[in-house]
Amino acid sequence: MSAPGSAPGAVTCIGAGVIGGGWAAHFLARGHDVRAWDPAPDAEARVRTVVDRAWPALTELGLAEGASRDRLTVHRTLAEAVDGAGFVQESAPEDLATKRALLAELDGVTAPGVVVASSTSGYAMTEMAADAVHHPERLVVGHPFNPPYLIPLVEVVGGERSARWAVDAAADVYRAGGKSVIVLDRELPGFVANRLQEALWREALHMVASGEATVDQIDTAITEGPGLRWPVQGPCLTFHLAGGDGGMAHMLDHFGPSLRSPWTRLEAPELTEELRAAMVDGCTEEAAGRSVADLVAERDRAVIAVLGARRAREH
Amino acid sequence: MSAPGSAPGAVTCIGAGVIGGGWAAHFLARGHDVRAWDPAPDAEARVRTVVDRAWPALTELGLAEGASRDRLTVHRTLAEAVDGAGFVQESAPEDLATKRALLAELDGVTAPGVVVASSTSGYAMTEMAADAVHHPERLVVGHPFNPPYLIPLVEVVGGERSARWAVDAAADVYRAGGKSVIVLDRELPGFVANRLQEALWREALHMVASGEATVDQIDTAITEGPGLRWPVQGPCLTFHLAGGDGGMAHMLDHFGPSLRSPWTRLEAPELTEELRAAMVDGCTEEAAGRSVADLVAERDRAVIAVLGARRAREH
Repeated sequence: MSAPGSAPGAVTCIGAGVIGGGWAAHFLARGHDVRAWDPAPDAEARVRTVVDRAWPALTELGLAEGASRDRLTVHRTLAEAVDGAGFVQESAPEDLATKRALLAELDGVTAPGVVVASSTSGYAMTEMAADAVHHPERLVVGHPFNPPYLIPLVEVVGGERSARWAVDAAADVYRAGGKSVIVLDRELPGFVANRLQEALWREALHMVASGEATVDQIDTAITEGPGLRWPVQGPCLTFHLAGGDGGMAHMLDHFGPSLRSPWTRLEAPELTEELRAAMVDGCTEEAAGRSVADLVAERDRAVIAVLGARRAREH
Repeated sequence: MSAPGSAPGAVTCIGAGVIGGGWAAHFLARGHDVRAWDPAPDAEARVRTVVDRAWPALTELGLAEGASRDRLTVHRTLAEAVDGAGFVQESAPEDLATKRALLAELDGVTAPGVVVASSTSGYAMTEMAADAVHHPERLVVGHPFNPPYLIPLVEVVGGERSARWAVDAAADVYRAGGKSVIVLDRELPGFVANRLQEALWREALHMVASGEATVDQIDTAITEGPGLRWPVQGPCLTFHLAGGDGGMAHMLDHFGPSLRSPWTRLEAPELTEELRAAMVDGCTEEAAGRSVADLVAERDRAVIAVLGARRAREH
């Protein structure tokens, strides 16, 4: 791990798929040496393809000083790939047995004190680290979103045997590269973003399975509807504004009864006084002194910019 | 209803809240005369406030020729408000008894052949039109998203007694004003977008209620994560790309088992051959000949533009 402001060290990226290759592209663009490994015979071609596809985007966003695709090396063995690395990002296929064996092996060959983060979309590190016998305290989850070189969010969480310093160090590496990090205190299946996204996705699958909507209608419903607000204000703040000047409190009091409507296959929690207070207080805190009118104006400016960005892309 | 290309007629907007006022702003910006009504004593002040807050955004997006806030009039009675209108948009509070009484009254005072569309977020027109005895065939749902003057999506659906011509005419009015319209064939509680959004929202409420995440973590998880992709590609096409060059087929085969994971409180449907085929075919159709590599490049350009738009807003 390099200290903030110092030259970034080498990062090992395990896995040559969309996520592993995407991480390689991200760390290359941030000026790291990247050492890649994947068991596939065409590993090098695959990872370079992902990096090459990502590079125009990364160039447009701005490369770190000295960043270059030439600083990618692809290695034949795990031991060689982690040699000299200051951070390891594991992005193997999403299969528990695979992850468990690979993390045990990585733990055996990686220098003590070097954090190994897993890109798993939902497994708990406690399960994945079960066979790691050397330094399991440096194994953590660092879950990105596709594509990892563009989407800022990384969810960081440790397992039962992970050390706090390892969780913090992983968060520091990501933040130093410009990521937005959420550190979770507990191992929650699917973490935060995937739980939310997955609820929506499962409802979509149900709707297609039952003939209620087509793939195209579902995608249009999001890209032309609530999806335009979500890069700007999350679901809570969005509904804070739906309450007019009364904010989240008015929204919950007015639309609360809708929670009992069969609007989705997911049952709602009871809207207790405690939950109401948590939502209202959370929105008040997030608004940080901005009135609903301020937030409306801010959202409008941002949605207009997003609409403009979409239009520009189409031409 | 005005024919495409002719001067737009007067539109009546019922309700002076965020949605009713937002519709008034939309139709004013598109060059209509707008006739508003709300039972509140301060109806005029309220609707003008919403319009005034929206106007800078609408001006930036581009006003239709002759569009002016001076073309808004606020009336004392329903009968006066609908007099001479070519289209009526009802945005009363979301309460079934209120909607039912109001639509019956609107049906009584509005000229036959004029479509009355309800902004309801989830009620079926069959329920809402129960007391309409004059021309229930012109009553349809035209469900917008907040703010109606910026978000393009409008979901249009009739009830059991609605005529096809009324559904089509409402869709035409919205499209003429630049909206993206989904016409649904059946009355589905919550329509399409709200079913999807509501599944996510209920999962969020559960997470706050159980202490799994804070309001701020939930909003950050979306605005910094999947929310950045959703104005660009909907949930289906997003996951089509998550499958790499194998697309949705590979994604379902690879991540299908995750559907049995407790990633959300919503149970997934069985991933039958039929559902797999519907998802794969739907994505293939939506991709319309664009390869996964094409779609990746397109998404990257759009996400970069959205990131840029967000950054511009912050400064």
